[in-house]
Amino acid sequence: MVNVNGRSYAAPKQPTIVICVDGCEPDYIAQAVAAGLMPTMKRWLRDGTALVADCVVPSFTNPNNLSIVTGAPPSVHGICGNTLFDAASGAEVMMNDPKWLRAPTVLAALSDRGTRIAVVTAKDKLRRLLGHGMRGICFSSEKAGEVSEAENGIDAVLPLVGMPVPDVYSAELSEFVFAAGVKLLATQRPELMYLSTTDYVQHKHAPGDADANRFYAMFDRYLAEMDRAGAVVAVTADHGMNAKVKLDASPNVIYLQDLLDRWLGEAASRVILPITDPYVVHHGALGSFATVYLPPEAADYVGARLAAMAGIETVLPREAAATRFELPADRIGDLVVVSERSVVLGTGVARHDLSQLERPLRSHGGVSEQRVPLVLNRRIEGLEANRRWRNFDALDLALNRAQ
Amino acid sequence: MVNVNGRSYAAPKQPTIVICVDGCEPDYIAQAVAAGLMPTMKRWLRDGTALVADCVVPSFTNPNNLSIVTGAPPSVHGICGNTLFDAASGAEVMMNDPKWLRAPTVLAALSDRGTRIAVVTAKDKLRRLLGHGMRGICFSSEKAGEVSEAENGIDAVLPLVGMPVPDVYSAELSEFVFAAGVKLLATQRPELMYLSTTDYVQHKHAPGDADANRFYAMFDRYLAEMDRAGAVVAVTADHGMNAKVKLDASPNVIYLQDLLDRWLGEAASRVILPITDPYVVHHGALGSFATVYLPPEAADYVGARLAAMAGIETVLPREAAATRFELPADRIGDLVVVSERSVVLGTGVARHDLSQLERPLRSHGGVSEQRVPLVLNRRIEGLEANRRWRNFDALDLALNRAQ
Repeated sequence: MVNVNGRSYAAPKQPTIVICVDGCEPDYIAQAVAAGLMPTMKRWLRDGTALVADCVVPSFTNPNNLSIVTGAPPSVHGICGNTLFDAASGAEVMMNDPKWLRAPTVLAALSDRGTRIAVVTAKDKLRRLLGHGMRGICFSSEKAGEVSEAENGIDAVLPLVGMPVPDVYSAELSEFVFAAGVKLLATQRPELMYLSTTDYVQHKHAPGDADANRFYAMFDRYLAEMDRAGAVVAVTADHGMNAKVKLDASPNVIYLQDLLDRWLGEAASRVILPITDPYVVHHGALGSFATVYLPPEAADYVGARLAAMAGIETVLPREAAATRFELPADRIGDLVVVSERSVVLGTGVARHDLSQLERPLRSHGGVSEQRVPLVLNRRIEGLEANRRWRNFDALDLALNRAQ
Repeated sequence: MVNVNGRSYAAPKQPTIVICVDGCEPDYIAQAVAAGLMPTMKRWLRDGTALVADCVVPSFTNPNNLSIVTGAPPSVHGICGNTLFDAASGAEVMMNDPKWLRAPTVLAALSDRGTRIAVVTAKDKLRRLLGHGMRGICFSSEKAGEVSEAENGIDAVLPLVGMPVPDVYSAELSEFVFAAGVKLLATQRPELMYLSTTDYVQHKHAPGDADANRFYAMFDRYLAEMDRAGAVVAVTADHGMNAKVKLDASPNVIYLQDLLDRWLGEAASRVILPITDPYVVHHGALGSFATVYLPPEAADYVGARLAAMAGIETVLPREAAATRFELPADRIGDLVVVSERSVVLGTGVARHDLSQLERPLRSHGGVSEQRVPLVLNRRIEGLEANRRWRNFDALDLALNRAQ
């Protein structure tokens, strides 16, 4: 057993795979199962363990992936968004660097004890965080052509997987993760694998849509292979996904920085959208969560005024937000703002490039995207009936209770 | 001007049509507009008035249709569900009889002053309530073959519309309403028309689904005809619609009566599902709202225990529920229970026939289905920016502000 962030984990007795399906609103699985396209998942739901869990808010990729691999909320691991306002430098910075990580991962702790680990992510932005302190294999689909034994614990991924490096905006970027997982399982025999995809498909297609169903049918074929290989598999997600449009299908945006500039004067406040990363084509950096840095005397006034606006679900001051959403108080603004299911938050209307949105905006970030699947291909007896499950219980269930 | 339920309404100066599209989650319109299938609606959204309003909770058909035609919530008009527990008789009764109606309709008041009115509903269950106290034309698609001048203010509807009587479970039942509206407009010159459809399509198909898009494309063709005829048209809905399934696509149900029988003993409590009506094939009488009659000493205990359950959004005692949801306190139980977006409430597992659900359950009834479109083909200047719009503002906007 290793003890990590207050929880104990047994080393895997069987090959174990935890999969984070980016943007997997539970209804994607339901509709694909109903369409007969996920026979393996259907069997797991019947014979294994089928839970719906809460992810971390902000329901974004980085905070949730780090929660899953640390077994802890952002108040512990420190990664509370894709970006952060660094008060020291006065600049908005990406939180891709492991220097922002405040807690060890379960992966690192187990690799220290000799467990053979492999991590495959779709986008490279997550790789360094997930692989921090870990020995073993760790690479992304995006940079699968540039791996090395020294940096990634493996070389020549492309011949192994038998797929070309996919476009960063494609369903294949995620398929590559699954395909690599299956090949690694057969050839490298990792004892614990963490596979994390991208939500390109989910940002574009609603549950039940033909392209969404095609993605989940593809996913199911890989699940079947993992199952046949005898692995314990846990499937969860970093966040859900909802349509975020007005009646005319244009993005339903509240531009917070524009509002605050009007209320307080230009540049008196700073709105941070922690969804922001270098890959914003499919959502225009629009999500349902923002944090706002304000002059001290303005917080109450701005908070009350925002809370009264149509489309705003919750406004909380720093400490209350840190408590409710388990966030590091020193890394969020004076206010946390969460918008409703169909509404996203922007900075200024001039600062979002929506020209490349090909379809009606779908996005995430709010409480409305907090429900995610938590499914295992093993039945776990005696599950606590009224417990609030979290996506970051995945490793605990997979390692401690499913084998 | 007539004064009805505390609000004043001008008689129409131009032909005016209010349309209640049953189960019209706003995203149905957005996805159909994005697919290029609603050119008329797209133009209205740009040049007319495009609001998203709150319907009445329980987000069911009868309470909301009556709210739209009375301009008032159920606390005023008394219709708080499709069914009611009649304490006097100790039985569950349909609220289709006008004896349950506590307020006059705007339609009746205007017809008294000589306005020519026509009402067409899909299902006959609503006809008597909507037509109560009103002179003019009032019939349903369902019984379009059985109309008479004496009962319906018109005979020979079928030759006028040129469609056969549709099946009660069909998209055509709603199309018949629109087709009849257009023909009535041309031949009978009603000054005010109320058209109310059925949510057969919405219970089966998600926004953007091919069959849903086909329905809204059909709807748009009739809107174009109404527009060309010079009518002021307001489009709203009785409630939204959401998927209500587990990961395996089976209905995600909390069976309240079974729970309460276990907690309190058989028949000590009575769970009422006000969605219940004779047409339950497409939803199995499963919605996200229930009201519960309890022994007096049990309300606090049951309320707290239900509120702690996963899937339950809100539990309120009678008076608090009556205040929050504007319901008649004497017609609801000791508790009102509202479930979450993906969850429905049932009585006992043995009492719901789900065998005829052909597709994954979609339903309504909760706060999660409260958002509905409120669109007019006329621009209204000076709309209050932060007002909470209601679907029952439709007649006020159409009669008082759009002409």
